[in-house]
Amino acid sequence: MKTLEWRRNELIILDQTKLPAEETYRRCTSWQDVKDAISVLAVRGAPAIGVAAAYGLVLGASELLRRKITDTAVFSAGLATVAAALDAARPTAVNLHWALTRMLKTAEKELAAGKSSAAITLALEREAVTLHAKDIEINRSISAYGAAAIIMQKGAKKLTVLTHCNAGALATADIGTALGVIRALHKRGLIERVYADETRPLLQGARLTVTELKADGIPVTLITDSTAGWVMKTGRVDAVIVGADRITANGDTANKIGTYSVSVLAKEHRIPFYVAAPLSTFDLSMTKGEEIPIEERHHDEVRRLRDVQLALADADVFNPAFDVTPHQNIEAIFTEKGTIEKPSETTVSAFFRT
Amino acid sequence: MKTLEWRRNELIILDQTKLPAEETYRRCTSWQDVKDAISVLAVRGAPAIGVAAAYGLVLGASELLRRKITDTAVFSAGLATVAAALDAARPTAVNLHWALTRMLKTAEKELAAGKSSAAITLALEREAVTLHAKDIEINRSISAYGAAAIIMQKGAKKLTVLTHCNAGALATADIGTALGVIRALHKRGLIERVYADETRPLLQGARLTVTELKADGIPVTLITDSTAGWVMKTGRVDAVIVGADRITANGDTANKIGTYSVSVLAKEHRIPFYVAAPLSTFDLSMTKGEEIPIEERHHDEVRRLRDVQLALADADVFNPAFDVTPHQNIEAIFTEKGTIEKPSETTVSAFFRT
Repeated sequence: MKTLEWRRNELIILDQTKLPAEETYRRCTSWQDVKDAISVLAVRGAPAIGVAAAYGLVLGASELLRRKITDTAVFSAGLATVAAALDAARPTAVNLHWALTRMLKTAEKELAAGKSSAAITLALEREAVTLHAKDIEINRSISAYGAAAIIMQKGAKKLTVLTHCNAGALATADIGTALGVIRALHKRGLIERVYADETRPLLQGARLTVTELKADGIPVTLITDSTAGWVMKTGRVDAVIVGADRITANGDTANKIGTYSVSVLAKEHRIPFYVAAPLSTFDLSMTKGEEIPIEERHHDEVRRLRDVQLALADADVFNPAFDVTPHQNIEAIFTEKGTIEKPSETTVSAFFRT
Repeated sequence: MKTLEWRRNELIILDQTKLPAEETYRRCTSWQDVKDAISVLAVRGAPAIGVAAAYGLVLGASELLRRKITDTAVFSAGLATVAAALDAARPTAVNLHWALTRMLKTAEKELAAGKSSAAITLALEREAVTLHAKDIEINRSISAYGAAAIIMQKGAKKLTVLTHCNAGALATADIGTALGVIRALHKRGLIERVYADETRPLLQGARLTVTELKADGIPVTLITDSTAGWVMKTGRVDAVIVGADRITANGDTANKIGTYSVSVLAKEHRIPFYVAAPLSTFDLSMTKGEEIPIEERHHDEVRRLRDVQLALADADVFNPAFDVTPHQNIEAIFTEKGTIEKPSETTVSAFFRT
């Protein structure tokens, strides 16, 4: 089961909306296919959608080539249009924007060097493949830093960890961010159990995290989101680890809706709350969490589940896909370049200066 | 739509598991039918299951009569067996036990007065009908006390209220407890909006609370359970009102799983957290919440939804049906005899002494 696979001129995307019942793949041969896959969450998770969008832009470039657009200025403008459309597929995770910006910079460099549209397309493909490959390395590094930091704080004892949503292999190109840290701890025999919040409305915890961890032989117990407080209260949780979709300059962290509640509950029970995310998740152009745009999704995500009507079809719904955890609630952020303890404007800026 | 209807020798129970998609009724002609209906949550809500169980005992008595058990000692022992079985249908809500204890006392009194098995059965039916009728009065009284207390604290301004699970008409014989208070406030034009937590795994909020409130023209917005923290953080909630399944002598309150999390979130955001419950919900034989037995339900409630497999069929699950909110997190408890402010061992015992 591979989250993403690039086969020259097509991107094969594991359709995560069907998991764990069915393992089906979406064959994306156009950038629109990739945009749709991102919009419906066939591929999801901040790092994975960044990589998918990069390949999407490659498909866009190929299409411009097929349409014989050899004027490089027109070609470049076409790329920018495709990038903007891909970027708009989901507004909260900044990795999407980060990957597309990097791709467009690559195109500009080639353009400035007087390269042809065909050459620019090849350079874009190389860059997308590099981004994809790098994510593996980044996952490993985040996981190593995270595991080391937790062992430093907690000692080398078995831990029960709670996680929310899925920041695992299915959200990235490799072992994951939050689940990467858990996997690194498990490798050293330090995971007693993982509590996986089911993560309504789209159930990424139930469908993806439980499946991933079970496959790796890591003891995992599924709970409803509202059971998280009770497992903490009854002393079952040593640490919380989650991923992130955007982190602002002061360490405020947007992540799947419900993460904020978990952070408050962790604080109440004096349980450390950790975030694991690549540097591409940081948006230093924003000073604080209030500036992060929060995606609101369709009401039917809450009112229906497949063919089952859960609530009246015309029930009013508030369905934000993300919330923001203030940095004060975060013990540390694990990145591929090291750990930011007690994230704040000061510690985050110090970290990026070094 | 009536939660419960008694038609001499049969109890008609609205099957709440099918709502809001289908309005179907279960015809209970034996005490086992009633026990099953309680077990599968066709009828649920602490006050409603108390009333249902009382009628269940009447059906048990009728069956003993039909089996020609005229020896009143044997008859009485039979009743005790049926009561114990009904009582075991759900362990957390104490109203079930309270109602059955009251019913058995009625039988004992008749027995002591030398009455026949037939006369005892009639007395039991009278008592069950009385319990049922009284619940209406109790609902009205709780709602009036609750609305008055909230207006005293908050002033006569429009409020946005968050509730968890369903403590409404469908959980009682009338307008409900928590939703009764909301209805009383709405009557005075003081409800801006209600946020209804969907309440996984059985979705009583999505299926029942939203349906009830919409039917009454009260503005209601459905949210997933893990959105509750975010709506509080973003300043949308003035008060939380929930029901209760058992309240111990110090004011600790068992209610639907997730209530504890909501209470912690309310405390974090300085939002008053209120409980509305009849006196029959108090279990003064227990000093504190840790003594309350917490029902754990089947893993498939979390792993499946109707025919949809949400997680691996062999996923490990922790599925407590209730949790306990410590009295420190509760601003006030509304009962049919008045309001207990800042519930604690001292204030609860003072309340019961007067």
